[in-house]
Amino acid sequence: MEDCIFCKIIKGELPSTKIYEDDDVLAFLDINPVSPGHTLVIPKEHYENFSATPNELLSKMMPIIDKISKAAEEGLGADGFNVALNNGQVAGQIIFHTHFHMIPRFKDDNLHLWPGKPYKEGEIEKVAEKIKNNL
Amino acid sequence: MEDCIFCKIIKGELPSTKIYEDDDVLAFLDINPVSPGHTLVIPKEHYENFSATPNELLSKMMPIIDKISKAAEEGLGADGFNVALNNGQVAGQIIFHTHFHMIPRFKDDNLHLWPGKPYKEGEIEKVAEKIKNNL
Repeated sequence: MEDCIFCKIIKGELPSTKIYEDDDVLAFLDINPVSPGHTLVIPKEHYENFSATPNELLSKMMPIIDKISKAAEEGLGADGFNVALNNGQVAGQIIFHTHFHMIPRFKDDNLHLWPGKPYKEGEIEKVAEKIKNNL
Repeated sequence: MEDCIFCKIIKGELPSTKIYEDDDVLAFLDINPVSPGHTLVIPKEHYENFSATPNELLSKMMPIIDKISKAAEEGLGADGFNVALNNGQVAGQIIFHTHFHMIPRFKDDNLHLWPGKPYKEGEIEKVAEKIKNNL
């Protein structure tokens, strides 16, 4: 897609620090990392987000994320990692070309996940119905 | 696995609010949701984490997450969603049975993602090498 930064990276029109590449998928380091080694894994074909990406292609990305996360643990001495994907602006998506984040985690890296809190009495069943009715 | 809460949920020994189930995968609502409709998608077979889960099974979970996230947008009026997976205690994993989080997002839900910041001069290439050498 003409104005897409990630498409320009794929075409080599913009620089990136590549980690992995095959016919369908490219992985490169995020230039504003949450932690060192923060990697973006993207399909080469342009799709706006996870919801618009063919299931087969999303599935193909899992073994690649697995491979890269293990390499990051080995190579960077990470103690774990997060896999994250933001679908839609409200979810924090900034570049509208599907991308998984692989974020290496280190002891005392001081990153905090979102906090959860319990449902109110009876609410969980109502929420479940609203989802299940649309499956 | 005997002491695993999720294995007990799968066997029906502990209650859960189920959203989706097939031969290999179960999805149910997190009881401490980050947002209403926060869903956990898990393999029925016990694996400690993403890294220990067969690639084929991880891949199989993507179309299911896609299906559930679309149903959550329809049914709950969500404006987007996050997919997240925590691998290892340091990454925020609490239950050691592989699970993807699907977190519906709503305008003004006031959730914030981790902040990123740029690499120092020359650092990004070094980090990339350390990962690539272990692929």
